[in-house]
Amino acid sequence: MIKKQKIVNDPVYGFINIPAGIIHELIEHKYFQRLRRINQLGLTYLVYPGAVHSRFQHAMGSMYLISIAIDVIRGKGHEITDEEAEATKIAILLHDIGHGPFSHALESCIIPDLPHEELSLMFMEELNQEYNGKLELAIRIFKNEYRKKFLHQLISGQLDMDRLDYLRRDSFFTGVTEGVVGSERIIKMLQVVDDNLVVEAKGIYSVEKFLIARRLMYWQVYLHKTVLVSEVLLVKLLERVRELYVLGKLVINNPNLEYFLNRKGNDKKEIIEHFYMLDDFDIISLLKQNLNSEDIVLSSLSNAILNRKLPKILISRQQFDDEFLISLKNEVMTKFNLSENEAKYFVYNGEISNNAYSNLDERINIQYGSELKDVADASDMLNHSVLSKIVKKYYVCGPEEIINNKKR
Amino acid sequence: MIKKQKIVNDPVYGFINIPAGIIHELIEHKYFQRLRRINQLGLTYLVYPGAVHSRFQHAMGSMYLISIAIDVIRGKGHEITDEEAEATKIAILLHDIGHGPFSHALESCIIPDLPHEELSLMFMEELNQEYNGKLELAIRIFKNEYRKKFLHQLISGQLDMDRLDYLRRDSFFTGVTEGVVGSERIIKMLQVVDDNLVVEAKGIYSVEKFLIARRLMYWQVYLHKTVLVSEVLLVKLLERVRELYVLGKLVINNPNLEYFLNRKGNDKKEIIEHFYMLDDFDIISLLKQNLNSEDIVLSSLSNAILNRKLPKILISRQQFDDEFLISLKNEVMTKFNLSENEAKYFVYNGEISNNAYSNLDERINIQYGSELKDVADASDMLNHSVLSKIVKKYYVCGPEEIINNKKR
Amino acid sequence: MIKKQKIVNDPVYGFINIPAGIIHELIEHKYFQRLRRINQLGLTYLVYPGAVHSRFQHAMGSMYLISIAIDVIRGKGHEITDEEAEATKIAILLHDIGHGPFSHALESCIIPDLPHEELSLMFMEELNQEYNGKLELAIRIFKNEYRKKFLHQLISGQLDMDRLDYLRRDSFFTGVTEGVVGSERIIKMLQVVDDNLVVEAKGIYSVEKFLIARRLMYWQVYLHKTVLVSEVLLVKLLERVRELYVLGKLVINNPNLEYFLNRKGNDKKEIIEHFYMLDDFDIISLLKQNLNSEDIVLSSLSNAILNRKLPKILISRQQFDDEFLISLKNEVMTKFNLSENEAKYFVYNGEISNNAYSNLDERINIQYGSELKDVADASDMLNHSVLSKIVKKYYVCGPEEIINNKKR
Amino acid sequence: MIKKQKIVNDPVYGFINIPAGIIHELIEHKYFQRLRRINQLGLTYLVYPGAVHSRFQHAMGSMYLISIAIDVIRGKGHEITDEEAEATKIAILLHDIGHGPFSHALESCIIPDLPHEELSLMFMEELNQEYNGKLELAIRIFKNEYRKKFLHQLISGQLDMDRLDYLRRDSFFTGVTEGVVGSERIIKMLQVVDDNLVVEAKGIYSVEKFLIARRLMYWQVYLHKTVLVSEVLLVKLLERVRELYVLGKLVINNPNLEYFLNRKGNDKKEIIEHFYMLDDFDIISLLKQNLNSEDIVLSSLSNAILNRKLPKILISRQQFDDEFLISLKNEVMTKFNLSENEAKYFVYNGEISNNAYSNLDERINIQYGSELKDVADASDMLNHSVLSKIVKKYYVCGPEEIINNKKR
Repeated sequence: MIKKQKIVNDPVYGFINIPAGIIHELIEHKYFQRLRRINQLGLTYLVYPGAVHSRFQHAMGSMYLISIAIDVIRGKGHEITDEEAEATKIAILLHDIGHGPFSHALESCIIPDLPHEELSLMFMEELNQEYNGKLELAIRIFKNEYRKKFLHQLISGQLDMDRLDYLRRDSFFTGVTEGVVGSERIIKMLQVVDDNLVVEAKGIYSVEKFLIARRLMYWQVYLHKTVLVSEVLLVKLLERVRELYVLGKLVINNPNLEYFLNRKGNDKKEIIEHFYMLDDFDIISLLKQNLNSEDIVLSSLSNAILNRKLPKILISRQQFDDEFLISLKNEVMTKFNLSENEAKYFVYNGEISNNAYSNLDERINIQYGSELKDVADASDMLNHSVLSKIVKKYYVCGPEEIINNKKR
Repeated sequence: MIKKQKIVNDPVYGFINIPAGIIHELIEHKYFQRLRRINQLGLTYLVYPGAVHSRFQHAMGSMYLISIAIDVIRGKGHEITDEEAEATKIAILLHDIGHGPFSHALESCIIPDLPHEELSLMFMEELNQEYNGKLELAIRIFKNEYRKKFLHQLISGQLDMDRLDYLRRDSFFTGVTEGVVGSERIIKMLQVVDDNLVVEAKGIYSVEKFLIARRLMYWQVYLHKTVLVSEVLLVKLLERVRELYVLGKLVINNPNLEYFLNRKGNDKKEIIEHFYMLDDFDIISLLKQNLNSEDIVLSSLSNAILNRKLPKILISRQQFDDEFLISLKNEVMTKFNLSENEAKYFVYNGEISNNAYSNLDERINIQYGSELKDVADASDMLNHSVLSKIVKKYYVCGPEEIINNKKR
Repeated sequence: MIKKQKIVNDPVYGFINIPAGIIHELIEHKYFQRLRRINQLGLTYLVYPGAVHSRFQHAMGSMYLISIAIDVIRGKGHEITDEEAEATKIAILLHDIGHGPFSHALESCIIPDLPHEELSLMFMEELNQEYNGKLELAIRIFKNEYRKKFLHQLISGQLDMDRLDYLRRDSFFTGVTEGVVGSERIIKMLQVVDDNLVVEAKGIYSVEKFLIARRLMYWQVYLHKTVLVSEVLLVKLLERVRELYVLGKLVINNPNLEYFLNRKGNDKKEIIEHFYMLDDFDIISLLKQNLNSEDIVLSSLSNAILNRKLPKILISRQQFDDEFLISLKNEVMTKFNLSENEAKYFVYNGEISNNAYSNLDERINIQYGSELKDVADASDMLNHSVLSKIVKKYYVCGPEEIINNKKR
Repeated sequence: MIKKQKIVNDPVYGFINIPAGIIHELIEHKYFQRLRRINQLGLTYLVYPGAVHSRFQHAMGSMYLISIAIDVIRGKGHEITDEEAEATKIAILLHDIGHGPFSHALESCIIPDLPHEELSLMFMEELNQEYNGKLELAIRIFKNEYRKKFLHQLISGQLDMDRLDYLRRDSFFTGVTEGVVGSERIIKMLQVVDDNLVVEAKGIYSVEKFLIARRLMYWQVYLHKTVLVSEVLLVKLLERVRELYVLGKLVINNPNLEYFLNRKGNDKKEIIEHFYMLDDFDIISLLKQNLNSEDIVLSSLSNAILNRKLPKILISRQQFDDEFLISLKNEVMTKFNLSENEAKYFVYNGEISNNAYSNLDERINIQYGSELKDVADASDMLNHSVLSKIVKKYYVCGPEEIINNKKR
């Protein structure tokens, strides 16, 4: 008998097959269904209105790409058993299941001590219990404890299917078509050498293009100044919420959110049972409740995000000097009649950075006959010092009228 | 001095220019920003995970198409003044501003007596006051009270820019590529004859294709049985919420939703001030609050939608007989130990229908020299009786195990 | 050892794999390489400048689609052996190898007694000898003499891979995007029932769309009036060439073309050895040689095609009456000082027709559970009488100034 | 009265408007129509079967992009009169009209002393006479003799519309999707500063991407080793033709080709009248005539190109030493029984090079406020030394069996 496959429509790749069995069951699980309610790109939609795609879609897309990669690698004579293939698919399907509301935006804010990778692992272990150990191999691959290292590299590495999907998907939904990565082409040129994922020589131009596209997506989308200002604002708002809540000055009516605002314990089951109930909807509803709050910080910041009345942001390659920052804060305090503590929610600064390709990280190896070269050495175009250069920029945010005034 | 135009990225059309002035201000208005929080296709994303686009995007896209149409029509020698052009753009930008949470899904449920078109008009009138009468002409065009009727037809008619955008956008985001409509091509072939929007003769094939694509979108997306079952479920859930709330058996903690669950008055300002605060987030949060409700109807239905545990639906060209429906309900009552009143939330039936092109409705006129013909007459392929035929189908929904059992 | 696959880039589908072995060898064969020099759409590029794609590309594309179809059908539990799969691919790869210069345009003109299908078969049989019988099974499938009839239907039938490729490819290169057919979607919904190719029920809308798109391509591209007038002109020109050549009044300097202008014998080997040397280049070179011919017919018609100075064409649903045609011819004779014989190259008439879906032809069966229905019965939209209706149109061509004058 | 615009379908951009008047007439002119018979990419189709697009399409596409650029620049407050706009469009439309058969492939071979730019100018001047001086301004802009230098830069410069079209079009037709350049985006970010075309700061990433895509197209398409070997082969073949023809050992039957094989004079009118009659068809027909030539060079090389039996090519970063080359030649002479003169048509070597962005050339200026920076300085990713680095590679071609043998 033929196992009946479910097919899902995906605007990026067309059809995605869902294998019957454990993978289908995991997708149906409430932990996974929750990803429908987590925006892949946080508040990016305030700049790119199309960026409303969910973590659910990204997880499915990554699984799709890994299926193709497995076929390609098998087709080049490397063994991947059916069991390994399924486990690799499971691992990538669940690799981001630990993301909280608005993905990266609030990551260090809701559970400061647990990055999303660790939460993903906690979810996987929980599901492994529920499914009687059927996720064992997936977990080993995810943790890079399985002997075939290249399977892990498909999930997490310089050229993993996670990146190939999100760069392509994010450029698709934002409409930043120049960020489009030829995922399919790169995958066709994957090869395994000494248990490492490498790219065949003729793929060098595609890899160069991938690095450039990725960089473009960073500066044009992920680190877009308006996206940045929105997400910092959201973090500030959550800080204020926590501050008032802990002081008993704020009623929230959301037990799951309250659990994390005031978390004491470290019980994994308890964390998961509350965490899986949190998503973008809790945060936006919180903002809506506080749109008319008596607390000027809460009401202003909620309005700023909900109705897109964003502060002004200045970006510079040089650090802003303290004097400038202090004078800004003073002006805000005077003009809006705020305390110093309140003012810090209206004027704040920080830094952003991106390194397009760090060789501290894993390398992208290009295969020339029997030899391997790092792309940074193999490329005529992108030299090593350039690729590993870390670009740092500094920003300061504040009310538009005050910032504009200062600039003159 | 040159007015600086804002440009927005749209995944469907690329760049969309936002004219400076009143249009830009309207887009910045909180009433309009709210559309970011209204999903264009209700719960369709439960079937097509990509269908997460918002009413905001659709409104912008419609405005974009209408700009092109205005250029085309002007280019064919018909006068459209700058004032008329702006008013037409405003009218289409705001034509759907009265949509509530999940768009059509809950339309008759939250404000049964006010269809979204009327609410849109209320919003426009409110905004007209706020902007000192600057929307006067837009409102007249929207209400078809302006002498150049073809401007209204661009907004609402058989071939309006609203449809051309949503069909194209919905097929883009669902990934149902066969629903793609060549909006740009049809627009290039628009013409105005005796103040009516018509299509030039060579556009006949594109119009045929448009009608077929629209039909495909209806049956494959808008009336997809799983979409249908989800949206009916959501309506049932809201009915239960109202039932319990009115009886004082449910705490909601959402003043805007509560206002509509128990609305007494008809004050427009009051309605708008509460309505503009309602969006998808209120509904999903309501479901999340009731996921563990003691009321079995609320908890079951919330779980069904949130975690995609949907009932089974049967579709038939014939009506289901009463006996069958009664026996279903009885089984549900017995099996799940429910009262008759509760059971009606688990078993229910209804009908769906679509007429691809009704000549009761306006016609699509094709221009042959000085003569006009309705597409239903002009087309060799699609004859009149076929086009105006209304297809009706019947459905019944219920728990999977009971429905499956019955079928045997 | 792994057989090394060759990969070819295709603008329509991306990558196409060429299996090693006989298929690779056939593609390298000079008979097949010749298809690079045969335009898929004859003179259509005079209207759609992008329509410069070759029969070579179409043959490769059809083979690609048939590979996918084979995978899909196997995936639904029907056996297709490796040998059958290879044979089916060979059959579709070679199905059009008998096309002559400008594909259909000159088909009945160069070898009036041998349609391209028969020539294709002659080529296959020749190649079968050369490859020691390795094409035996491919030929049986091509001739529908193999027991698994559905394999033949993949090559030739209402929904064959030939059509699915050419409709998609032609719309791609002409830029008539509304002719785009969702080939991949239809293929995913193929099924085999009682050895017949059918489409699963949910594919009904895609099939409807396919029929409409096909129709659109017919009227908008294949039977476009300017394409028509160009191709009829080319036929007229070849007739004149033959007329003068046979009378010894024309020097040609092209032994292969001369063989067919004056063919006596029926020796297959001889026919093939001359035919495979004929392609678009012989015809265009012939025109260029005669651009300044003393024969006014040759020089005028060559100029008309080469420099796109095309006659005027009138199209009508009614036949043109003889009187009108005679008066046209007379005017041409007078105005350009031509003999009656010469005039027939400047004024001529004919008819065109298209039946979108003839039920005399094979049917497109849609599968409803265990039942099959013809699409014409299954569709709510397209009814039987409409689908099988043959639309006939009449045309007359002549010099622009005379035709325009007549119309008044 | 409204001038009726002609619209042409383009697979890359959709619709292209052809302005009525002189531009329409020039497109209808036989000199321009001839571009339909010149392949944009020479013999590249032997590697990328889709690369069959013509110079005609490219010229139209460039004109389309320049129209958009003109709108954008006007929209930013710079004056471009209607006369200037028309002249600029004419100049780009005709900028490549001097290309001969197979574009660059045979450029230095048929008219060694006249590069295509000079021939284009000769054509323009000829047309200027024919149209009574109406091309005067276009010619001045083309020759960069008009005071608004930025108009010339739109036609010829680092970011001209010629490049933006051909990179996009060539990647479209070859199917090398990673070469796709976001032409439209770059154009939207053009600005004019001090009469120079520059790019606004936010366009830096698009420019980087453009440079990388261009580089990818160079190595993956324009300098692809099989393309290279084919085109060198064609040059060798033409050399042999000339050699034999001059000696009276070859009958050609093509007066236009013969004129150039043996050209004595420099009369412009004469050159043009013969040159405009030359196109790809003359060359391919020549090859077909000589496929069975008694001259082994002619027949072998004709077969190699027509039937794609290409020699082997070796590429190296180091020069091949003389010894190696001599030994190759000797082996070929022995094995195929050739004279030394004949052998040079079977073994030959040369070099290829590409500099992605030469600062000897014009610069791409990026505008930061009131400051301009060259992209090589502005980019974090692409540093100066990398961008201006010239990569040189060496190749040697010869019969496959001999080359392969040598390698061991």
